[in-house]
Amino acid sequence: MSGYMGKILRVDLRNGEIKEEELEEEVAKKFIGGSGLAAKIIYDELSSDVDPLSPENLLIFMTGPLVGVKVPNSGRHAVCAKSPLTGIWGEANSGGTWGVELKKAGYDGIVVKGKAEKPVYLWIHEGGVEIRDASHLWGKDTFETDEIIKEETDEKAVVACIGPSGEKLVKIAAVMNDGKDARAAGRTGMGAVMGSKNLKAIAVRGDKEIPVYDEEKLKELTKGLGKMIAEKAERMGRYGTANIMIMVEEIGDLPIKNWLQGRWIEGAEKLSGERMAETILKRRYFCKNCVIGCGRIVEIKEGKWKLEEQAGPEYETLGAFGSLCLIDDLGAVSKLNEICNKYGIDTISAGAIVAFAIEAYEKGILKESDVGFALRWGDADAAIRLTEMIARKEGIGALLSEGVKKAAEKLGGLALEMAIHSKGLELPMHDPRAYASIAVAYATSNRGACHLQGLTHPLEGRLVIPELGYNEPLDRFDVNGKGIMTAKMQDLMAMFDALTLCKFLIFGGITVTHLVDWLNAVTGWNFTVEEFLKTGERIYNIKRMFNVKCGVSRKDDTMPLRILTHKRGEGGSAEHLPAWNIMLSEYYEYRGWDEMGIPKEEKLKELGLEW
Amino acid sequence: MSGYMGKILRVDLRNGEIKEEELEEEVAKKFIGGSGLAAKIIYDELSSDVDPLSPENLLIFMTGPLVGVKVPNSGRHAVCAKSPLTGIWGEANSGGTWGVELKKAGYDGIVVKGKAEKPVYLWIHEGGVEIRDASHLWGKDTFETDEIIKEETDEKAVVACIGPSGEKLVKIAAVMNDGKDARAAGRTGMGAVMGSKNLKAIAVRGDKEIPVYDEEKLKELTKGLGKMIAEKAERMGRYGTANIMIMVEEIGDLPIKNWLQGRWIEGAEKLSGERMAETILKRRYFCKNCVIGCGRIVEIKEGKWKLEEQAGPEYETLGAFGSLCLIDDLGAVSKLNEICNKYGIDTISAGAIVAFAIEAYEKGILKESDVGFALRWGDADAAIRLTEMIARKEGIGALLSEGVKKAAEKLGGLALEMAIHSKGLELPMHDPRAYASIAVAYATSNRGACHLQGLTHPLEGRLVIPELGYNEPLDRFDVNGKGIMTAKMQDLMAMFDALTLCKFLIFGGITVTHLVDWLNAVTGWNFTVEEFLKTGERIYNIKRMFNVKCGVSRKDDTMPLRILTHKRGEGGSAEHLPAWNIMLSEYYEYRGWDEMGIPKEEKLKELGLEW
Repeated sequence: MSGYMGKILRVDLRNGEIKEEELEEEVAKKFIGGSGLAAKIIYDELSSDVDPLSPENLLIFMTGPLVGVKVPNSGRHAVCAKSPLTGIWGEANSGGTWGVELKKAGYDGIVVKGKAEKPVYLWIHEGGVEIRDASHLWGKDTFETDEIIKEETDEKAVVACIGPSGEKLVKIAAVMNDGKDARAAGRTGMGAVMGSKNLKAIAVRGDKEIPVYDEEKLKELTKGLGKMIAEKAERMGRYGTANIMIMVEEIGDLPIKNWLQGRWIEGAEKLSGERMAETILKRRYFCKNCVIGCGRIVEIKEGKWKLEEQAGPEYETLGAFGSLCLIDDLGAVSKLNEICNKYGIDTISAGAIVAFAIEAYEKGILKESDVGFALRWGDADAAIRLTEMIARKEGIGALLSEGVKKAAEKLGGLALEMAIHSKGLELPMHDPRAYASIAVAYATSNRGACHLQGLTHPLEGRLVIPELGYNEPLDRFDVNGKGIMTAKMQDLMAMFDALTLCKFLIFGGITVTHLVDWLNAVTGWNFTVEEFLKTGERIYNIKRMFNVKCGVSRKDDTMPLRILTHKRGEGGSAEHLPAWNIMLSEYYEYRGWDEMGIPKEEKLKELGLEW
Repeated sequence: MSGYMGKILRVDLRNGEIKEEELEEEVAKKFIGGSGLAAKIIYDELSSDVDPLSPENLLIFMTGPLVGVKVPNSGRHAVCAKSPLTGIWGEANSGGTWGVELKKAGYDGIVVKGKAEKPVYLWIHEGGVEIRDASHLWGKDTFETDEIIKEETDEKAVVACIGPSGEKLVKIAAVMNDGKDARAAGRTGMGAVMGSKNLKAIAVRGDKEIPVYDEEKLKELTKGLGKMIAEKAERMGRYGTANIMIMVEEIGDLPIKNWLQGRWIEGAEKLSGERMAETILKRRYFCKNCVIGCGRIVEIKEGKWKLEEQAGPEYETLGAFGSLCLIDDLGAVSKLNEICNKYGIDTISAGAIVAFAIEAYEKGILKESDVGFALRWGDADAAIRLTEMIARKEGIGALLSEGVKKAAEKLGGLALEMAIHSKGLELPMHDPRAYASIAVAYATSNRGACHLQGLTHPLEGRLVIPELGYNEPLDRFDVNGKGIMTAKMQDLMAMFDALTLCKFLIFGGITVTHLVDWLNAVTGWNFTVEEFLKTGERIYNIKRMFNVKCGVSRKDDTMPLRILTHKRGEGGSAEHLPAWNIMLSEYYEYRGWDEMGIPKEEKLKELGLEW
């Protein structure tokens, strides 16, 4: 079965049982890989009422058929489980080199079940699969863990691991990989699931060839594409994901002061990709097979924010800790980024929680006696102290580490106004008031508020995707057709997440046809564009069905009222509010979901899914 | 102090203490009467964290300065308390003759506190105020109670009382008055508060004159108005509130099948005011001083739905038990109406709960073993059995009697999709998908979903109110300016509820200027239209502030997602969804409320309110 190694590793940590399971081609064709295949496994095997932090939860690491072969930007992997943060479908994905290395070690994915009696790590290599003691690693940060494991195993090993936060079951804990290059499967608390299993790390190393059905064809298909992508995404490469910082502030897309404020241009300029390139940027970082190189490696040689060479903050991190908290210091945000990476927590949720806490403090919900110190907008020192407390579950950090939804429910009253999440996941750094489609995309995203499960807003500005019927950019405030567009983009993005390809390819001129051609050349299959997108739809729906079993329905397909109803009155989207309800109605109809948001029987039948 | 009797009766049932309190003119000028004055008292005296069914809750009966004087349709009274159904501000008002009689007995209002050791009733008459034993009345329905108390006191006494449901603390219990004429202070569970105080009834009888400042002026001001109102509201008089039934079905304003369905014309015709007039209508009923006569007295001489002469169903009741449950039989709905009136429960909430239960049954959330029998759309016999169980708190009725919000929270999962309420109060029978303004009016109504706290939708069809700046009817789907219009109408309606005037006056050609002139002539004050409306705004805001203390904020100013996001696909508003969020934003800004929906300090200052 070309493209695939054909094997899924099954590890039961309760008894140390390790099995190899054959990946059936029929299943692979229907769910591809990545979070698609993981969803199929979880839907079939995991009871929806399982406590996410119990041994019964499944933690799945999965690659896709294009990972590691000679297609651009194919070096990602997915991490999936029932989420302890949201209580529904959880998934995150990460770049770097780990996914490719796992395949080279002979596996398309790993399904971990059970809980080890004491801390362990997995060491997967040409010689076999070992469950090793990790007692000496417990408490170590992700940078240290990476180094020690490489020393103990193979200097070329690639390590995915949790930091102290995952160990402590912090609900926003991430699974980190590639050491100081600090790639993160950040969202929905997958690190806490890993911690709940006493699994500190998975180190992989291999030399196997990844089979390709038609090498010649693939070569032909990808010829010149690297150059094209690199050129088209040149700005992304040069200034990283923060290349958009000034533009998003101007357009009203940047969330500021916990989503209350409309403008913050001086701050945005200080945090911009351009400013980073002029100051702390040491070099670019490329994930495996990447031709864009949006990753930042930064270094701060001296001063208050002295920082050794390591991964720098992404746009999302600069938004979450920067504009959301009004911290306008690149050094401070880099320091916050380092803390999150070392402890292993999601920077988006962490920054959003800090912003929530600052607002709660400002409005008297949290007091100095609760926190131990004052919390103020723009106070980097306080943000650092608080982030460390969250990462360590210390003091008020224990409550906050549950995420803004649960924290607000505990604090009650007006705190509920300040908790900016959907389905329990803190919103990422794009504002539905700037791009209408984001409203319905966040509201219906299977993992909770997520811009990447739909990645719709680029179509409301500059991007066209002819295979989906979008030949010219759409108006960003118009709601007509945006429900349908969101559904279509979610199906496409579900395929990206199944193939575990980098989504920035779409900014590099790569369209659906490229993906289909690559997939066919690598696997020998004969997907049409239509079948390819139908597969995305199947995957989107199986995730939805897992969520439905967890209790999700129309009532949950919404967003904080601050986003839906609060006009900011200044900036590039000053007077705009998204008519999410109109888009949602269109979305449901297009999706073939009923009035409660549940896929109809005929739709499931059409997709070959069973209830 | 003309217009007023100048006295509030204070009754503490714990110790039987009865006091007369002077009504200060300064307070009366600021809060007028009715639910305005009640809100002032509750805001000042009641802690927001009081259990609504505890002795500490205040139960206030209040009239206004125009009640009983020679202005048309001035015979209503308000009943207010913290609501046991919603946990926030509760108010209901009722027509009939009770309010006028209370004033003639010498009081503008009654504030009841504490709980009697055993059932009692109040007997207020020229000879004084007595707390009488009501043990023999406990368990009696409202028709019997009315008769017995009149026999025991004075045949001309007017009785407001609870039925068995109020005694049993059913959360949707009403306070009924005028016996078989069955006027109801129906919404927000005021009957349960009365029951929690062991107060079965308040009987009133008096012969006092109601002082009028300038009789001549008043006579001049009202000359010819009775005729004008009667003519303009002729259809309302002829066919009752159900005169609109066929029109609302056509326009998509009638809620059908628990708000899912778009058309039901045969059913609507069978339940129409015209059909009632041809069949079961015996005569019209006029509240005190009414010139419209929308009340229905019906009689069914034989057959399955045999009914002795009594109050017939209103439009809201025909909607709640009729179209919402798909019961298309006028006799059956009249029977359901009788059950509600005798047990003393709100027909709107009761019908909405039955519709909720039928849908829950259809979708497998409620089983035959839970209910004891099958629940099906249109099954009148099942609806009757279930309504009686709710009224008696029997079997599943105990859970359902908590209202759809709490019932759905207990049942969980998809039941939450079917619970159509706002702030815990079941929606009344006008659909925000047909008139955009209703969305923001329901969402922001102080007592939970209510069309009468705003009464906005008539301005989106046929009505003009020049003093508010509306000189021609507005488009019913357009959202522009509707937030502002809703706020203005709420302020005006707050004045109607303070004056306890019948709101149908606005269909009779009465405008703001009439009200102001009447008020000035009766009291001797010199309100301008502006001051009059500012007073309404003050009242609206003091209720909001009580709610804010109860935990209400922007997060609560919303509606069920079925209403906001589900298109019905047929009927007169097939494709329309209300852009509530846009209207809410406009509404907050106009109101001078902050981003959390809390009145800003400068607004409170402007209104002379203290935090």
